[in-house]
Amino acid sequence: MNAVEKLAAKNSVNKFICVGLDTDIEKIPRHLLTSKNPALEFNRAIITATYKHAAAYKVNFAFYEKDGVNGFKLLSDTLTLIPPDLPVIADVKRGDIGNTSGMYAKSVFDHFKFDAATLNPLMGKDSLQPFLNYKDKLNFILALTSNPGADDFEKLELNDGSFLYQKIIEKVNEWNDNNNCGIVFGATNSSELNENIKMFDRLAVLLPGVGAQGGSLPDVVNAFKKENRKNYLINVSRGIIYKSNGNDFAEQAEYELMRMNKQVQLIIDS
Amino acid sequence: MNAVEKLAAKNSVNKFICVGLDTDIEKIPRHLLTSKNPALEFNRAIITATYKHAAAYKVNFAFYEKDGVNGFKLLSDTLTLIPPDLPVIADVKRGDIGNTSGMYAKSVFDHFKFDAATLNPLMGKDSLQPFLNYKDKLNFILALTSNPGADDFEKLELNDGSFLYQKIIEKVNEWNDNNNCGIVFGATNSSELNENIKMFDRLAVLLPGVGAQGGSLPDVVNAFKKENRKNYLINVSRGIIYKSNGNDFAEQAEYELMRMNKQVQLIIDS
Repeated sequence: MNAVEKLAAKNSVNKFICVGLDTDIEKIPRHLLTSKNPALEFNRAIITATYKHAAAYKVNFAFYEKDGVNGFKLLSDTLTLIPPDLPVIADVKRGDIGNTSGMYAKSVFDHFKFDAATLNPLMGKDSLQPFLNYKDKLNFILALTSNPGADDFEKLELNDGSFLYQKIIEKVNEWNDNNNCGIVFGATNSSELNENIKMFDRLAVLLPGVGAQGGSLPDVVNAFKKENRKNYLINVSRGIIYKSNGNDFAEQAEYELMRMNKQVQLIIDS
Repeated sequence: MNAVEKLAAKNSVNKFICVGLDTDIEKIPRHLLTSKNPALEFNRAIITATYKHAAAYKVNFAFYEKDGVNGFKLLSDTLTLIPPDLPVIADVKRGDIGNTSGMYAKSVFDHFKFDAATLNPLMGKDSLQPFLNYKDKLNFILALTSNPGADDFEKLELNDGSFLYQKIIEKVNEWNDNNNCGIVFGATNSSELNENIKMFDRLAVLLPGVGAQGGSLPDVVNAFKKENRKNYLINVSRGIIYKSNGNDFAEQAEYELMRMNKQVQLIIDS
């Protein structure tokens, strides 16, 4: 089963929440710090508590790269803890000239064996092509992000009256020959989501920004429900993994994820 | 001496060539493969042969990340070989939401202790701010890249008649409060370089694309000479480090770098 099929399979059972493992030693419960590898124990507990309810996991490399060799070791060890039937997204936002982009693709797909990656399209098609060549993987390309800086460039108006992020979505549709493209669309941009949702009919959509960043879960679910579409993942990181800072952190993460799943289900059934 | 000062000091002696350590096990001379750590031995030989003539080194993380933990080990070991008075640029093209971008900045500046980084501005100011907060470091922000895909978005015309890459340069000028900003401008874009050069009067400029990608060394040097400016670095990777595939690869890399330095000097003196 390739990444697109795995995503579709998960969504057929109405699982839409992707758990982001943005593991930060400064934020994990203090009682873990006495263990030999606190960050790994944290990830193990979170994964054990959430995997039955998660649609996917997302790992942002930044939280691992910050510790160099040890961080990459933690990343490798963490990946072995995730059940193989769950898609795992490398949130790397890579993009570079072709030759170099090929090395990044090898890192993400061949070395670490992720099912999907996030990519930055600024440098254009050839900067992403090595990733797009992996037919069984899924590539979420940044279109409109959830942060305030989205105004700086992504929302700039072009000379044909469209916005840069719309031009990106248009191009991603053109690049989708292998049916392995998706976009990243920040959940904080609720009105843009509703206005443009028909543009990503044939793309998988990853929506970060719910929770700590202020995006609304019901807004996202309703937008896709109106279109009768299920090809999306809502990423929640801090809102789940740091729900509690006590001994019950894993249990609370599980409850929070189950609560979100139920909230989604209620909207879909309504 | 911080990175900006180091860069200025180097340029006062007319050293403008940055050597890119894009080390690829598939491309290094075959005779090295019998050694215990071929990639490290290659980097050691290249650095030993070139450091007296180089303005800086640039390390693209992709070539190291592709081997995960071992690649990051190689990266760390390589950095210890570079004399401390030479600026070293982390070519990472990072950019992410603030919280995450801060982790990337820790990776590049605190953990690996690079002097400078390349960044991708698509997500806007807050996605780069954690890097810009390091006053003694230098941040080269992608404006117009050297690859064909630059046409896809960077050269799009905005509704005010300017191009996206020009808007990026305008913003980078605004973000330069700490005098630690620069841009990446592909040497393959010779006419755009001449047309826009006055826009980056207060910025450091990193120009990749000379050599394997087809950019012209004299075109770049002449463009800056006309403006009486020396705040630039021309990056050459493959054109130097893979100049020869034989036993003389390090010697040939040194000659090629010296030849380029001489070519630059002749233009400046003419």
